[in-house]
Amino acid sequence: MREVIPQPLTADAFAPFGEVIEASDRAEQIAINYGFTTRFNDLADVDVGDEGGRAIVSLFRARPLDPPRLKIFERHPLGSQAFVPLQGRPYLVAVAPPGGFDPAAVQVFRAAAYQGVNYRKGVWHHFLLALEAESDFLVIDRAGPGENLDEIDLAEPDQILVRP
Amino acid sequence: MREVIPQPLTADAFAPFGEVIEASDRAEQIAINYGFTTRFNDLADVDVGDEGGRAIVSLFRARPLDPPRLKIFERHPLGSQAFVPLQGRPYLVAVAPPGGFDPAAVQVFRAAAYQGVNYRKGVWHHFLLALEAESDFLVIDRAGPGENLDEIDLAEPDQILVRP
Repeated sequence: MREVIPQPLTADAFAPFGEVIEASDRAEQIAINYGFTTRFNDLADVDVGDEGGRAIVSLFRARPLDPPRLKIFERHPLGSQAFVPLQGRPYLVAVAPPGGFDPAAVQVFRAAAYQGVNYRKGVWHHFLLALEAESDFLVIDRAGPGENLDEIDLAEPDQILVRP
Repeated sequence: MREVIPQPLTADAFAPFGEVIEASDRAEQIAINYGFTTRFNDLADVDVGDEGGRAIVSLFRARPLDPPRLKIFERHPLGSQAFVPLQGRPYLVAVAPPGGFDPAAVQVFRAAAYQGVNYRKGVWHHFLLALEAESDFLVIDRAGPGENLDEIDLAEPDQILVRP
């Protein structure tokens, strides 16, 4: 088992895996509603594939994994999946590139409370890693025909302990 | 101008206009992630129409309208639009049924910080009404071809002042 200290989540560091959903200066900003609202537009590539999928909105209520020992990764071959924290708490994001799972390629990020993530179709990721307390997240992913979940169990030497 | 005291937002009261996005007992609840997560599944009907639309995810940063005097309503004839508060503050929701706008049919709700809303396609609604302070909301709506915004300006007698 190796130990990892999470890195701060940034759009650049996360780009190989998807998008960071945040109100940053990189976003297209549109003044709407007679100046009362700024729209940070189109921050995530919602991908429901070409096989009859549709975008759905759900809430995930997640308990922290304590300690955060990462043994299982998953991927969704048919669609993207976005998570946005709703209760002002940071969380962990653990990802690996699409294709054959490479435990050495896992990257662990610490997302701030104001940051969501959108996993691109096929990107390996750990299941939702709340921190501090049970926390709700808004989730935008795909419903539709086909098998949209692959999982992998890591052998002990490939497991990752996330340090605070 | 008439005055209205907002009613609490409930799924039943809001049903003619769309869905309330909340982790309630009415939702389908699925235990996932080895018991660490409960998925409250498919809480909003994301409708992007049949004319080449796609679902997009944006952030809206909204300043309160103070006092909340409602003069302008809008509707999106080509798609639904969902709002989920991200900073733990309540907000106001003002809606009227689809079709010809009827000022007497406007209903005003006070949404709790843990409640999102999804406006059904064509439902008249006031633009985003933050309360207390500038607030961010996650928005799921439609991008694509076609004109997806109608607006109506209310004459003074039809305007609505929302009481705290």
